[in-house]
Amino acid sequence: MTRTLVLLRHGESEWNAKNLFTGWVDVPLSAKGQAEAVHGGELIKQAGVLPNVVHTSLLRRAITTAGLALDAADRHWIPVRRSWRLNERHYGALQGKDKKATLEQFGEEQFMTWRRSYDVPPPPIETGSEFSQDGDPRYADLGPEMPATECLKDVIARFLPYWEDSIKPDLAAGKTVLVAAHGNSLRALVKHLDGIGDDEIVGLNIPTGQPLVYQLDDDFAPTVKGGEYLDREAALAAAEAVANQGR
Amino acid sequence: MTRTLVLLRHGESEWNAKNLFTGWVDVPLSAKGQAEAVHGGELIKQAGVLPNVVHTSLLRRAITTAGLALDAADRHWIPVRRSWRLNERHYGALQGKDKKATLEQFGEEQFMTWRRSYDVPPPPIETGSEFSQDGDPRYADLGPEMPATECLKDVIARFLPYWEDSIKPDLAAGKTVLVAAHGNSLRALVKHLDGIGDDEIVGLNIPTGQPLVYQLDDDFAPTVKGGEYLDREAALAAAEAVANQGR
Repeated sequence: MTRTLVLLRHGESEWNAKNLFTGWVDVPLSAKGQAEAVHGGELIKQAGVLPNVVHTSLLRRAITTAGLALDAADRHWIPVRRSWRLNERHYGALQGKDKKATLEQFGEEQFMTWRRSYDVPPPPIETGSEFSQDGDPRYADLGPEMPATECLKDVIARFLPYWEDSIKPDLAAGKTVLVAAHGNSLRALVKHLDGIGDDEIVGLNIPTGQPLVYQLDDDFAPTVKGGEYLDREAALAAAEAVANQGR
Repeated sequence: MTRTLVLLRHGESEWNAKNLFTGWVDVPLSAKGQAEAVHGGELIKQAGVLPNVVHTSLLRRAITTAGLALDAADRHWIPVRRSWRLNERHYGALQGKDKKATLEQFGEEQFMTWRRSYDVPPPPIETGSEFSQDGDPRYADLGPEMPATECLKDVIARFLPYWEDSIKPDLAAGKTVLVAAHGNSLRALVKHLDGIGDDEIVGLNIPTGQPLVYQLDDDFAPTVKGGEYLDREAALAAAEAVANQGR
């Protein structure tokens, strides 16, 4: 028996459109991002890969993407699970900063280290900063796990317990699972599923609004490495566009 | 200790706007209904009555209302529970029919009996009808509980187990609970809370998009009978408009 897992990265947010580092700042989808989410749901419906449960982050760009996509797929009524462990990478002191200005200020090497290194996080965000999440009630229960910055390695460390305790049990129960999340939390999942190395994962770009379907065997190993995009051609073009962000 | 319960009837749907009987037919909100939902969320935010959990029906007009209202209130990230037991009354053979044409065809007395009697349901919907929910996957587990028509008494009978088993435990745990649902499932809840008689409940109209807040004591009895609308004036005007539907 195979289990079906559908990954969906949220569509363009207002800050993607403005080329700002977002991280845990809770910005809404742009109109383009909303349209991407609806289109993702239409692809899911056409392919007949119908989720029985959805997992989202606590950020509205993923929550709205899930809502719009599921409505378009006629699956708006399925159970919903949310967790901060599916949040985007916390971008530390870079949150709210312009990507291009940051590149110019710090230079290509430092910029690419912060954006793409596996284990070097940006400087931590200051307490009380406009773009910090101190005191946000949705994170009130986190305690010392609340990050002030994260590298991809950190994202993987806080994502994996949720994979084990919440997503895998749904798959094991035979449910088709939709995960609506972010570039880096989905990269964490894909790295784990496909056994991608620490150096290799930083070059992997997951396009927005493009449903990526994994069939998993009894050991939760993908039957096709890398999974399969429902619209392969559009997904490849979109991944390329993501790779060029900030240039 | 009091517990806080917020009721929100979905905003105008496309079929409300067209004056058709809807019931379990899963029509979307109109643009006006979407705006009502956002406004309801703004009222919730202004009043600081912030939900910790939301319960919705399985119908998109309630699901979308909850999503838009919670986003406007900055509470989009709270846990979500859904149940068919919060669905609108099943309108039987009237589903999809024009309210005004039905009134003219069957006369005022029969029309008002179907719309407002406590224990007389409309004729059951035929299997295979365009507006029946046979084979809808969201109701696959219902078995013999799947209705073909309902009167308000039937709605109360299927709603109360959910109140006892799902909503009350959340309130008992100290959570502020939002219930985003429909005219008749909310009427069932209000009847139960306020101890309203079978004859009296049929005259009670709950306006759309107007948050209604109950503070409940340790015995889950309202501290103020009938609860309190966050925007009392608008709620009274809207309730009057609902009472005149189909005229």
